[in-house]
Amino acid sequence: MDLISSTAGAVKPVTSEWSTLAQAHLDSLTKPLGSLGRLEEFARRIVAITESKEPVLDKKVVFTFAGDHGVVDEGISAYPKEVTPQMVFNFLRGGAGINVLARHAGSEVVVVDIGVDYEFGAVEGLVDKKVMKGTRNFAKGPAMTKDEANKSIAVGIELAMSYAKKGYKLIGTGDMGIGNTTPSSAIAAVITGKPVAQVTGRGTGISDETLATKIRVIEGAIRLHDPDPKDGIDVLSKVGGTEIGGIAGLVLGAASQRIPVVIDGLISTAGALIAYTIQPAVKDYLFAAHNSVEQGHWVMLDAMGLSPILDLGLRLGEGTGAALAMLMIEAGLKIYNEMATFEEAGVSEKIED
Amino acid sequence: MDLISSTAGAVKPVTSEWSTLAQAHLDSLTKPLGSLGRLEEFARRIVAITESKEPVLDKKVVFTFAGDHGVVDEGISAYPKEVTPQMVFNFLRGGAGINVLARHAGSEVVVVDIGVDYEFGAVEGLVDKKVMKGTRNFAKGPAMTKDEANKSIAVGIELAMSYAKKGYKLIGTGDMGIGNTTPSSAIAAVITGKPVAQVTGRGTGISDETLATKIRVIEGAIRLHDPDPKDGIDVLSKVGGTEIGGIAGLVLGAASQRIPVVIDGLISTAGALIAYTIQPAVKDYLFAAHNSVEQGHWVMLDAMGLSPILDLGLRLGEGTGAALAMLMIEAGLKIYNEMATFEEAGVSEKIED
Repeated sequence: MDLISSTAGAVKPVTSEWSTLAQAHLDSLTKPLGSLGRLEEFARRIVAITESKEPVLDKKVVFTFAGDHGVVDEGISAYPKEVTPQMVFNFLRGGAGINVLARHAGSEVVVVDIGVDYEFGAVEGLVDKKVMKGTRNFAKGPAMTKDEANKSIAVGIELAMSYAKKGYKLIGTGDMGIGNTTPSSAIAAVITGKPVAQVTGRGTGISDETLATKIRVIEGAIRLHDPDPKDGIDVLSKVGGTEIGGIAGLVLGAASQRIPVVIDGLISTAGALIAYTIQPAVKDYLFAAHNSVEQGHWVMLDAMGLSPILDLGLRLGEGTGAALAMLMIEAGLKIYNEMATFEEAGVSEKIED
Repeated sequence: MDLISSTAGAVKPVTSEWSTLAQAHLDSLTKPLGSLGRLEEFARRIVAITESKEPVLDKKVVFTFAGDHGVVDEGISAYPKEVTPQMVFNFLRGGAGINVLARHAGSEVVVVDIGVDYEFGAVEGLVDKKVMKGTRNFAKGPAMTKDEANKSIAVGIELAMSYAKKGYKLIGTGDMGIGNTTPSSAIAAVITGKPVAQVTGRGTGISDETLATKIRVIEGAIRLHDPDPKDGIDVLSKVGGTEIGGIAGLVLGAASQRIPVVIDGLISTAGALIAYTIQPAVKDYLFAAHNSVEQGHWVMLDAMGLSPILDLGLRLGEGTGAALAMLMIEAGLKIYNEMATFEEAGVSEKIED
């Protein structure tokens, strides 16, 4: 059995027993029943995912996968392709949005070159897992071979396994890749079956004309390749990207190790959706960080039954929303671990029901 | 001139110049224009409020004002009145929701007895500013005299002044008081002019029957007292509470010192609305922490033109939402202070506009 199948097979659905236990404890704390809303949900889910009565999320990491996209040749992005490696250097120097927000959230950032069209050589801090130097232009042919798609997923799985072994307790996903809202919207359209125009947005800020081109390119590519919506690897290879594959693998690997995963915006959610077609039980391990401005995002979240934690008008990617949402998930868990019970505090309970 | 008038007079509207400067800097950072959505708004506002090019929010404090309410005699709450002092002890021991979330947000908690119907004596950590031992039952007569209402506002002003002097940079508001969603909904109805049923919710979790009683009691009190919607002190004295007055004063005092204030849920927003009737410019200093489950809450936010930062189904009060929202406001400011510019990072700018 290959790595992807064996990992997917190791993902078990999260059962309700631990969740019930967790809620019973939450209900004994000095607050009206359910009054901490989604913070209680986060605590319940972390207890159920980890199957631990006193889970801690002390070691956190956001993986930012960087890759390039041949489809930028079609003129679908507002930024030139060289921005991908330039931003990788920015990540490594700590000056990007994800660095700032991960520091704020007490999370590490791991930057992975999974498919940038640039030779970095040996650069300190950069994880070299390059599958290819950018995907091919999927307006003309498949973005990747099946083998390249499988390799990109394997990169994510192996990173999840290695960080699980190092004791990381909460994993966030992030991306960098000029042009990558185009493959993400293509994946959203294929797998959810929604019209391309409904799941395609302005990415980094394109004009009306470029948006029309972007929609036309995606529609053409779906006609050309006819990807199988039930086969995530087929979809990934035809209209995807290496960083999206890496995120799919990270989700599968983390879920197989019972590690909760905070998925960021459009690109991360496309990766999670690929993982979901391979193993639907991964959704039990996913936290949707935020509601991105990109309209394809909520369509994919909805397809997996996930509700975003934050709604702050973000559309940067990199894992920035994931880092912020980690702060809310941790808040829920601290409520669970640190609040006093009615009995401990000598507080009277409710009069009526 | 009395303290309230002089403080209100010292509150100046926040002008757009600093905000424009802040946005120019945000636009030079290595991210697509506007791609950090509301985080950029938070940064702009903090710069404009503090009139500083490099503001920091290193000293943060949430004030939790505790008071009791004579109107609980009407049977409008799910919890007995003795829970107010019991929860005060819980706050002082660090076991309540606000303690956990303020620790998480790196904020202090200051617990103020402004009107609890209990003799605490000298208790370490409790700030004794008792105006009265609980308000009077406003179903039968005014909750407070004008003098008591003024005193409760003065308590908040003096605390804001004193913490401004100690160098605190961000202030959160919170409340504890069994029965206090009833005066808050009454204030919402009077000042916004909305029907009582539209702004009255289930508080800590009351039954349909108790909710009907609560609405009837508020409607009756408004008929009985006919408070002047344009006179916040009149409204506060007739159907308010001491903790609500304390919060109103805190808002006025902080705004007069150009300190941003994060208001929590229903009760805090009722306090802010009282302050807003006294000096509408306070709204420039307010951040609405979250969208509470209590339906009167968004009606008041809307009346002041404020958009909630979080939407997590919270309805605990104490300042819990304010503590969480501080984390998001700080995130925005760190983006502003810590991210690299395109020039510093050597990243190419946009191709098209």
